[in-house]
Amino acid sequence: MPNKQIKIHSPLDMHIHFRDREMMKVVAPLSAYSFAGGVIMPNLIPPVDNIQYLQEYKVRLTSSVEGYRFEPFLTVFFRDYSYEELEQLKPLIIGVKLYPAGVTTNSETGVQGLEDVENTIGYLEKLDIPLMIHGETKGFVLEREKEFLPVYERLAKKFPKLKIIMEHITTAKSLETLDRYDNLFATITLYHLLITLNDLAGGLLKPHLFCKPIAKKPEDRQALINAAINAHPKVMFGSDSAPHSVDKKECAACGAGVFTAPIALQGLVDLFDKHDALENLQLFVSNNAQRIYGIEPIKKTVVLERTPYKVPHKFGNVVPMFAGSEIPWSICEIIT
Amino acid sequence: MPNKQIKIHSPLDMHIHFRDREMMKVVAPLSAYSFAGGVIMPNLIPPVDNIQYLQEYKVRLTSSVEGYRFEPFLTVFFRDYSYEELEQLKPLIIGVKLYPAGVTTNSETGVQGLEDVENTIGYLEKLDIPLMIHGETKGFVLEREKEFLPVYERLAKKFPKLKIIMEHITTAKSLETLDRYDNLFATITLYHLLITLNDLAGGLLKPHLFCKPIAKKPEDRQALINAAINAHPKVMFGSDSAPHSVDKKECAACGAGVFTAPIALQGLVDLFDKHDALENLQLFVSNNAQRIYGIEPIKKTVVLERTPYKVPHKFGNVVPMFAGSEIPWSICEIIT
Repeated sequence: MPNKQIKIHSPLDMHIHFRDREMMKVVAPLSAYSFAGGVIMPNLIPPVDNIQYLQEYKVRLTSSVEGYRFEPFLTVFFRDYSYEELEQLKPLIIGVKLYPAGVTTNSETGVQGLEDVENTIGYLEKLDIPLMIHGETKGFVLEREKEFLPVYERLAKKFPKLKIIMEHITTAKSLETLDRYDNLFATITLYHLLITLNDLAGGLLKPHLFCKPIAKKPEDRQALINAAINAHPKVMFGSDSAPHSVDKKECAACGAGVFTAPIALQGLVDLFDKHDALENLQLFVSNNAQRIYGIEPIKKTVVLERTPYKVPHKFGNVVPMFAGSEIPWSICEIIT
Repeated sequence: MPNKQIKIHSPLDMHIHFRDREMMKVVAPLSAYSFAGGVIMPNLIPPVDNIQYLQEYKVRLTSSVEGYRFEPFLTVFFRDYSYEELEQLKPLIIGVKLYPAGVTTNSETGVQGLEDVENTIGYLEKLDIPLMIHGETKGFVLEREKEFLPVYERLAKKFPKLKIIMEHITTAKSLETLDRYDNLFATITLYHLLITLNDLAGGLLKPHLFCKPIAKKPEDRQALINAAINAHPKVMFGSDSAPHSVDKKECAACGAGVFTAPIALQGLVDLFDKHDALENLQLFVSNNAQRIYGIEPIKKTVVLERTPYKVPHKFGNVVPMFAGSEIPWSICEIIT
């Protein structure tokens, strides 16, 4: 009997870090192989926050995924933009990514007080450009997302026509907030569906599972799983795959980010399969995002089968999630 | 004007990991230099849990602190001992250390279900041998200590004459339990007085600050500080200084333990000084332990002055807390 198979049509990863240059050459093809499109985060050093830089970055990015059926959806880093700047940027981007200052990797130049930048947020609403937010305060690490929720609520109320994406939500409370406002949407990562703080720090400390927002409690993970496997209509898959070279992870001060690009689709299929919810994966990993963002992705069907995928220890000098382990599902065919 | 000074008489570290052999040769002299005595933990591989091993370990340990005015107080690893074994061990040890199985470094062989070993606990009570406990369950990493509190309560009630030491407590809740039973006592580490989970994982991930029990919330740290600086009569200093070689800390799966032996006394003086509580340090770092355990330590006065101590980056291949930073206080004289 042949192994069980599943076809996913035009899978989309709505939150990826490709970085730039040498790192991008290593990681971008891994997403471009298995996904039909993805939202590329702008938190480079310096951040992508002007049209010239964006155009230059796009050239390098396009070249890094050459030969793959993959559409990168670009973003710019939130700052105090003028209306004209945003008008110019609009045809090139899928949204603007807002980082409160200093909360995660390369966000030192982010926004300090959101009250001061509401002009720009108003322009986004007017121009119908989605606002993606890394929603954390600088408080106690497990409470940061919860503490940020009032900001989401205030923005959702004040800018009712603005599409606001709560990026990589990690808690049951965030799902409650999401449900309260029509213009809030959310991405969920694979690793927040799989791990809790115990996986990071309950036994030995595992820097390759260290991310921001930090993985939370079992009951939070369960709430995220329920939203994903039931294909909550306001929730999309966004891997937040974030590569760091191994020397930045296995050291005395390790960067935040879990590298999941090469195992994302296999891991999702395995998770949905284990929850008997494979029929909802298409929505979670593509259709919801198409509807929320109004995009029509490249046609590309990824076929996975129930044959173990032995995850390599490294891609370049980046250690992926599940390095050296097996995932029960592997990609067996890409139909374009 | 000369720098401010403080004299500490016979400081005691009531919870130290010396390990064995090469590692012990590096770390034991650092405690033996600044402390008059210390309680040495038995969680070697294999654990110290019989008289022959204990005697052999004592020979190596004594040789590793030769030339220092320092008395090691030995312990054995809890198991199902007979009355006769404990009678034999009693003159050689200050207590028996109980690890629930698998909760921390080298505790894989610890006790599974405490109900099964109450005979041994009864013998300890009868022989007046203190029971030291690493009080954590295997639950969610931030709740493990709280979940273990009912075990402390049950033991305290069932064995009212047994001295039970709640080792390295980290939460406000543990202090409440401590206050509820006359036969409960506790140690507090320096690092739990200084750090919270934010220091470990709020910015970059810092494996050298990773310990079990894991550092908790700011309000927990504040409760511990209050107990220490007010010299709570049932609380003693125990550094839980736990060396790991740098390759076991800066890697993909990092061991739990913060190495504080060489900076413990300087760090304590600094903390108490900053809280205007230097007058209570003598109680916290020696007199409370003398009274609780009924020991008369070696006479040894350590003089510290307000001159910065530049902490080395490593001792052997072990990275200490505050590596490369300055502590405002340094040891200037040891009077024996």
